[in-house]
Amino acid sequence: VGFGSVGRRFVELLDGPYGRALRANGVEPSVTGIATARHGCRIAAAGLPLRRCLDVVCRQGSLGEVGAGTAVASAAELIKKVPADVLLELTPLNPRSGEPAVAHVRAALRRGLHVVTANKGPVAFAQRPLMRLSRRRGVLFLFEGAVMDGTPVFNLVGRCLKAARVLGFRGVLNSTTTRILSRVEQGATPASALREAQAAGVTEADPSYDLEGFDAAVKGCALANALMGADVRPESARRTGIGAFTPAQVRAAARTGRRIRLVVRGSRGRHGVSVVVAPESLPADDLLASAGSDGVLVLETDLMGEIGIWEGRGGVDQTAYALLSDLLEIVGSRCPGQ
Amino acid sequence: VGFGSVGRRFVELLDGPYGRALRANGVEPSVTGIATARHGCRIAAAGLPLRRCLDVVCRQGSLGEVGAGTAVASAAELIKKVPADVLLELTPLNPRSGEPAVAHVRAALRRGLHVVTANKGPVAFAQRPLMRLSRRRGVLFLFEGAVMDGTPVFNLVGRCLKAARVLGFRGVLNSTTTRILSRVEQGATPASALREAQAAGVTEADPSYDLEGFDAAVKGCALANALMGADVRPESARRTGIGAFTPAQVRAAARTGRRIRLVVRGSRGRHGVSVVVAPESLPADDLLASAGSDGVLVLETDLMGEIGIWEGRGGVDQTAYALLSDLLEIVGSRCPGQ
Repeated sequence: VGFGSVGRRFVELLDGPYGRALRANGVEPSVTGIATARHGCRIAAAGLPLRRCLDVVCRQGSLGEVGAGTAVASAAELIKKVPADVLLELTPLNPRSGEPAVAHVRAALRRGLHVVTANKGPVAFAQRPLMRLSRRRGVLFLFEGAVMDGTPVFNLVGRCLKAARVLGFRGVLNSTTTRILSRVEQGATPASALREAQAAGVTEADPSYDLEGFDAAVKGCALANALMGADVRPESARRTGIGAFTPAQVRAAARTGRRIRLVVRGSRGRHGVSVVVAPESLPADDLLASAGSDGVLVLETDLMGEIGIWEGRGGVDQTAYALLSDLLEIVGSRCPGQ
Repeated sequence: VGFGSVGRRFVELLDGPYGRALRANGVEPSVTGIATARHGCRIAAAGLPLRRCLDVVCRQGSLGEVGAGTAVASAAELIKKVPADVLLELTPLNPRSGEPAVAHVRAALRRGLHVVTANKGPVAFAQRPLMRLSRRRGVLFLFEGAVMDGTPVFNLVGRCLKAARVLGFRGVLNSTTTRILSRVEQGATPASALREAQAAGVTEADPSYDLEGFDAAVKGCALANALMGADVRPESARRTGIGAFTPAQVRAAARTGRRIRLVVRGSRGRHGVSVVVAPESLPADDLLASAGSDGVLVLETDLMGEIGIWEGRGGVDQTAYALLSDLLEIVGSRCPGQ
C-alpha cells in the first residue's frame, strides 16, 4: 500500500538482490496486490507482473493496464481482500495524525497479516495498541525504516541488545536540517540551502515540518515508544526549530570549531519519558556533529553504557533496505521446517 | 577458561541482571567448571558456588578451598571433561600466535560445545577452520567481544545486515592509542599519557602491541575474516605505529582542527582482502575522530551504503556484556519448545 519512490525501488530490487536474499532464506516473494493513490489498486493472487507495474506507473498510466488481476476500489478494500502474508505500508505520512498509515496497519494486523512499514506514523502515534494487537494475532509489526532509513535501530536493540535497557537517547535524526545547517556554515543562505535539500529529495512536503522540529519529534516519539516503553505523542514533545539560531550565529559557531545541530533527546524523568527537540551548539568532534551523515543516534543503556549508530548518506535505497530487513526478520521468526 | 577481570565480572553479573536475562529466555545458567592459571582448575557438575569462587580468587587463594567439585590439572583437561553446553574462553591473548585460545576453542568445538569468547585471537588467527568445525558439529562459535567489547559488531552484521555484503571497513579500534593521542593533543607527553592509559587498565601487557598497531591489526583481521570472508593473518597486515607522528605534529594538527588517530582499514583488491593499520590525520568532525569513544567502526556495504557503530567508554562491564549477548544468541538459536 503506497507505491511511491520507496515502494517502486523495493519492487525493482525484489527482482534482484532482495529476491535472492529472500530465496536464500527459503521464501519465494510474490507481490499479490498494489494500492496507489493515483494509479488504481489491483490484486492478483498469482502475483502481479512487477516490471509491467513499474512501467505503467512511471508513465503515469493505471495498474489496470498491466493485464493481470482485478481492480479494487481503495487501499482499505485491498487490505481487506488481498491474499497475502505481509502488508508493506508505504503511504505518505500526515505528520499531525499518523494517518492513513495507522488505519492501514490496524486493519492488516486485525486480519492476521504481518506488517512492515517505513512509515514513522504508526509507531509515533499508536505503537502501544498496534503492538498489543500484533501480539494478540501472533504476527509481527516491524518498522525499521521509521527512523534512519534501513540503518539498524529498532532491530539493533531488539536483536543485539536484548538484555540491556535503554535509559535514554540523543540523536540528530532530521537530515534536511543537518544539510541546511552545514551549507549555512559554508556561507549559503537558509533559503538556498533549503532549495538544495529539496532538490536532493530528502525534505518533507511542507518544509516547516523539518525546520520546526516536527519530523524530529515524530522520530523521537517513535524511538521513545518502541525502545523505552513510553506512550508519548509528537504533539507533547517540546520543540524548538533551527530558526532559534541566526545564520550569523551558525557561522560564528563554525569559526570556533562548533556545529549547530537539531538534537532530539529522550529521557526518563519523574513524570515518565519526555522527548525534547532543539538546536544545540556542539563541539565539532561530538559524534552528533560528525560530517557526512544523514542520521546518528546514541543509546544510553544500563548494561552496555553508550552505543552510537550512524548512517552515511541515506536515500531511497536505504529506506527500501529497511523493508527487506524487516521481511527477513519475519522469515527468521519461523523455525526451520515450519 | 580464564578467570581474570572479565570472567569475574561476568560471574558477578550472572548473579544479577545476566542471570535474570538468561532466565527470561528460558535458561537457568550454571557454571560447572572454572580453569585459572594461578588458582587451580575445578569442575562441579551441579554448579560451582560462584560467590565463594570469587572470594577465594580475590584473596589469592585456590579454587580447591570452595568446598565443591573436584580438581583437574589444566584448562585442557577441564575442556575435555567438564559437563557443559557452552565454553567461555577468556584467557589472556598471545597476540603473535592467538594461543592458547585457539587450542581451547578447537578442543571445545570438537567436543560439540558451543564456544563464546571475548578473545580476538581465534577469529584473527583461525576463523575459517574453527567456523568450519563449528558447523560440522552443529554448534555456534561466537566472539562478539573480540572487537569493541560488547558493542554489536559481528552480531550487528549477522543479525541486522543479513542481506547486505560488507565491501570494506574503516575504524579506530585501539582505545589505548586514542587515549594517548587525545592527551598529547592537550599537551601531555606520550610517556605520561601511556601511564594514564595503563592506570585505566585498557592497555595490552606489552605497550608496543598497542603503539605499533599490532592490536589494531589483530582486530582488523578478525573483522576481515568474519565479515568479509577473508582468510588473513595479523602478521601480513601492513602496520605503521603512532610514532610516525611526533607529539609536536599531533599538537599542530589539533590546532588546525584535525586529529591524528590510528585507523584500521579493510578493503578488497585484486589479491583478496587486505588490512592496513596506520595513523591518519582526520578532520575533527570525521566520525572516526569523534570524542569520548573507545572504538568506532564504519562498514561499507553494497545495499545499505555506510553504517557506523560507536562505543562510548568501554571497560570490563562492556566486555562481559559481549559474553551475555553471545549466550543469548545461542539460546535464541533453539526453536521454542526445543
